[in-house]
Amino acid sequence: MANSKYAYVRNFELPDPLLPGTFMLLRLDGHSFHRFSDKHQFSRPNDVRALQLMDHAAKAVMEEYPDIVLAFGESDEFSFLLRKSTTLYNRRQSKIVSTLTSLFTSCYVFHWPKYFPDTPLQYPPSFDGRIVLYPTEKHVRDYFAWRQADTHINNLYNTTFWALVQQGGQTTTEAHAALRGSFSKEKHEILFSRFGINYNGIDARYRKGSVLFREEIYEKGRNPSVGRELSILEKPQPKTEEKTAPSVRDEPQGETLPAEGATRDQKAKKVKEKRKQLLPSRIAIQHCDIIKDEFWDARPDILAE
Amino acid sequence: MANSKYAYVRNFELPDPLLPGTFMLLRLDGHSFHRFSDKHQFSRPNDVRALQLMDHAAKAVMEEYPDIVLAFGESDEFSFLLRKSTTLYNRRQSKIVSTLTSLFTSCYVFHWPKYFPDTPLQYPPSFDGRIVLYPTEKHVRDYFAWRQADTHINNLYNTTFWALVQQGGQTTTEAHAALRGSFSKEKHEILFSRFGINYNGIDARYRKGSVLFREEIYEKGRNPSVGRELSILEKPQPKTEEKTAPSVRDEPQGETLPAEGATRDQKAKKVKEKRKQLLPSRIAIQHCDIIKDEFWDARPDILAE
Amino acid sequence: MANSKYAYVRNFELPDPLLPGTFMLLRLDGHSFHRFSDKHQFSRPNDVRALQLMDHAAKAVMEEYPDIVLAFGESDEFSFLLRKSTTLYNRRQSKIVSTLTSLFTSCYVFHWPKYFPDTPLQYPPSFDGRIVLYPTEKHVRDYFAWRQADTHINNLYNTTFWALVQQGGQTTTEAHAALRGSFSKEKHEILFSRFGINYNGIDARYRKGSVLFREEIYEKGRNPSVGRELSILEKPQPKTEEKTAPSVRDEPQGETLPAEGATRDQKAKKVKEKRKQLLPSRIAIQHCDIIKDEFWDARPDILAE
Amino acid sequence: MANSKYAYVRNFELPDPLLPGTFMLLRLDGHSFHRFSDKHQFSRPNDVRALQLMDHAAKAVMEEYPDIVLAFGESDEFSFLLRKSTTLYNRRQSKIVSTLTSLFTSCYVFHWPKYFPDTPLQYPPSFDGRIVLYPTEKHVRDYFAWRQADTHINNLYNTTFWALVQQGGQTTTEAHAALRGSFSKEKHEILFSRFGINYNGIDARYRKGSVLFREEIYEKGRNPSVGRELSILEKPQPKTEEKTAPSVRDEPQGETLPAEGATRDQKAKKVKEKRKQLLPSRIAIQHCDIIKDEFWDARPDILAE
Repeated sequence: MANSKYAYVRNFELPDPLLPGTFMLLRLDGHSFHRFSDKHQFSRPNDVRALQLMDHAAKAVMEEYPDIVLAFGESDEFSFLLRKSTTLYNRRQSKIVSTLTSLFTSCYVFHWPKYFPDTPLQYPPSFDGRIVLYPTEKHVRDYFAWRQADTHINNLYNTTFWALVQQGGQTTTEAHAALRGSFSKEKHEILFSRFGINYNGIDARYRKGSVLFREEIYEKGRNPSVGRELSILEKPQPKTEEKTAPSVRDEPQGETLPAEGATRDQKAKKVKEKRKQLLPSRIAIQHCDIIKDEFWDARPDILAE
Repeated sequence: MANSKYAYVRNFELPDPLLPGTFMLLRLDGHSFHRFSDKHQFSRPNDVRALQLMDHAAKAVMEEYPDIVLAFGESDEFSFLLRKSTTLYNRRQSKIVSTLTSLFTSCYVFHWPKYFPDTPLQYPPSFDGRIVLYPTEKHVRDYFAWRQADTHINNLYNTTFWALVQQGGQTTTEAHAALRGSFSKEKHEILFSRFGINYNGIDARYRKGSVLFREEIYEKGRNPSVGRELSILEKPQPKTEEKTAPSVRDEPQGETLPAEGATRDQKAKKVKEKRKQLLPSRIAIQHCDIIKDEFWDARPDILAE
Repeated sequence: MANSKYAYVRNFELPDPLLPGTFMLLRLDGHSFHRFSDKHQFSRPNDVRALQLMDHAAKAVMEEYPDIVLAFGESDEFSFLLRKSTTLYNRRQSKIVSTLTSLFTSCYVFHWPKYFPDTPLQYPPSFDGRIVLYPTEKHVRDYFAWRQADTHINNLYNTTFWALVQQGGQTTTEAHAALRGSFSKEKHEILFSRFGINYNGIDARYRKGSVLFREEIYEKGRNPSVGRELSILEKPQPKTEEKTAPSVRDEPQGETLPAEGATRDQKAKKVKEKRKQLLPSRIAIQHCDIIKDEFWDARPDILAE
Repeated sequence: MANSKYAYVRNFELPDPLLPGTFMLLRLDGHSFHRFSDKHQFSRPNDVRALQLMDHAAKAVMEEYPDIVLAFGESDEFSFLLRKSTTLYNRRQSKIVSTLTSLFTSCYVFHWPKYFPDTPLQYPPSFDGRIVLYPTEKHVRDYFAWRQADTHINNLYNTTFWALVQQGGQTTTEAHAALRGSFSKEKHEILFSRFGINYNGIDARYRKGSVLFREEIYEKGRNPSVGRELSILEKPQPKTEEKTAPSVRDEPQGETLPAEGATRDQKAKKVKEKRKQLLPSRIAIQHCDIIKDEFWDARPDILAE
């Protein structure tokens, strides 16, 4: 075979498996998105179309890769959590990081016209990706808290900054100077006293980012994980159905959660049994808090093995 | 800062620099392209539109990343050579592999309508990427020889296979059986005697794949590197211009190449001097042999430091 | 500086940090110890001098590196557990694996004459080392269970094998054939019925291997962690002292352990408080079970952060 | 099997192969040798016994591992070059770095009494090791130049420093202050004018470090690689023999070297042929220059594939 003479070059391909038994966190970031958002005239401080497109791309990635159990997006970045037992692509780092970044990018370009019907894409955008391993649930919780705290900090700054510019008539230089070293409280005050903006009244999407997770539809129509800020892209029917069943959300969730004092093994068993009862999952998009315990307590499956 | 409490999670991001002083070879492969080509009714054994789209995406990646000095594509894969002294993204593996794979994918989706005006993209395609390091020029030569030999083997098989099916009326099972264990010579014979096809007369694009490199335009209009099979996408004028200057290609290239016996240092100096004389480079796409010495001897810059 | 011209070669030294927040397990193995034990006429199936020398070297390594919280040895191998929060040498893999393997080797050669006063070392022995990361306590428990189960399996086989050869007069070939495919129960039976050996009566050192941990000496002379099979090398006084305080060992340990239902935080606090009460630790060598919970329950510090 | 339940922990052992086709450079450094040399009263600025012991240990490592083609030592460090085609331990990084560091350490302790007959080892010394990959011959040359330039710089400083202290009656603080920021020339001047020391007359061992390589003994007694400063430990006869054949060293080496203009292939062939003619190699220890070309030109085998 003519090929065999050169095939030795394959020996230079080195294995790159990621440590088993650890959570994988893949974070994607837009490449030069400052320029990209300028060129496509994104509105400031937030462009809801761009954010929805990001969400859509992330949702498509989650649909393709069932081992992604949670995603969080803000601005031009998205983080994906893969369950720690995942054996996706034999946990090969380059394979995972390149394929998932590629699919996200592809979805972003593919779905662009749905969100920007009147703004043709000027040139092909790109994203970079990295995978970070986290050994424990606490690390994962803290990772997402880090990103959501970042969302808050950035959005409060940007909201105040653009109010000063767009409504206050300041130059961007002046606005930057005005905010340099300011505390959170001062920004709230500027927004409220000068522009009549109650920051906490701003769309949760901007303040909290987007949280994507697999919504489990329990037999008998029970779904304890549906929150108030739920929005499902492109699947309006289920969304409506959920809206007509608000009582579910108020129910105590005691029976689906491990009782106090249950051992680890019992917990694991419960989670397993619950999974069996599930109908095929569907991906929910919410703009809820993921720093406090509530979100996680209501969804023990996310971090379960 | 609310953020600082969680920011420790960044400590889990580990460095992943690639060994300096080695050539980086990035290879992209289409993800599930068998299905993708079925869904989009690619013609068999080769779909020229799909191949041109791949070339276009590769060219766009090269235009964005000047440290890519050569690319080779066949079917749904593309290989990119980065010069060994590149410090792109500080040689961080994940950053490079994810960003370049992302950009390639983005270009593929973005430019799809140009090549498939009547075939809307059904769903977002994706690619995986990997980087392999090669220490020496010989390894790089052998890598590209490996891919081009692979192109030949696959194309000869596919051409014969689809001739048996499309023109010979065999089922795909029969055609596979007929070719099992056959030698190259036998396939040539089947093509010629049964279907009147002279394999070597088939478009070089299919037999040789696509070779992309930076074409250097020398002062005084000299360009020794323009070959017969040159094609430049989307830039028809320069292409025509080259066609009207065939005499250039026939000129001996002696004076721009290091004389026999020149030492390594002298060679390096010549390469450097030559670079200074260059006008901004442009990317050529050819379908020429890259296994033999000729291509490389005519373009010492590709492997030069 | 004459040096600076060449100092660029340092750029080829790549970082190799180990993932934070994970337990490091360093395992050392004797290099060609079959030959080494032959040359130095180790007694079969076990040579107590050789095992004590291994223990001594391991203890010396633990004394030098306080972040090693547990070690387990059998035959010519030793495993060391480093606490997951260790920042030893900034968690650089090569530095840790090479330095600790080097020190162990050095101690082995240095202390050889103490254990083999009449057998001069024929040539310098060596060991190889590797580090494996484990994300959770369960992994660590299972790792040590794996090694101790291995100790049992090997020792039962070797004990029976050498009984057949040394007392039964079989050739080694015959003995191997006799044991091929035999179950544990059958080996026990051979030992007991043919050679009058009650396997469970054999020295625990051979059956269980050596377990080294930091023995914490509590105020008021309490030390719940001292077991029956304790032996301290080179420190006879403390050993005696322990022997005269047997009542301690029989005391219920309830008050030092977290109460049922205690939360994780409370547990961590207790561990911390307990640490403060400790006098400087000392390394104990026991030959006790580390597969079951008892050993670990009595020493929550080992796996605590 | 009781063992199989836990054996899954082996899945956490990740592969760590080093890139093929690159030179491996292993550098060992003494751990806390400042303290070690104090405790064992090494003479200042250099202790010939300690240096000879280092050489001896390095030689023993080279004898055990034929793929080590060159070693260089100074002070408490030693560098080993493995040929780039080596497949030692399948190029597994941890295995190589730990085993070789272990053996070196073992030899150091084992042979200590030969070099320090009146100074018992106080405690077990240790070394750390690291492997750096170099893609080309030039990198390897520059690496060794870097180390030998370092030897020179350190030794000139230390020689002057200790002259000021031992002969000049300065305190160490004064001596440090006197030399701060001084140039090489000034140190030479201090040595010569104040202490009558001609630096270049100092033993080459101290100025150049130790160079260990495989001395090839050609048929007909020819050995072009024997230099003037050769010393072979523990093998007095060959050493003498070489000393009585000085004419060999003066012979032109033209016929064993590739002629000007020889192609790479011809060179490789010559090297291969020459190897066949060799008698089993033996390790030479010299204190010669390895920065300039002469050493390397005379020994093309060292860097040859």
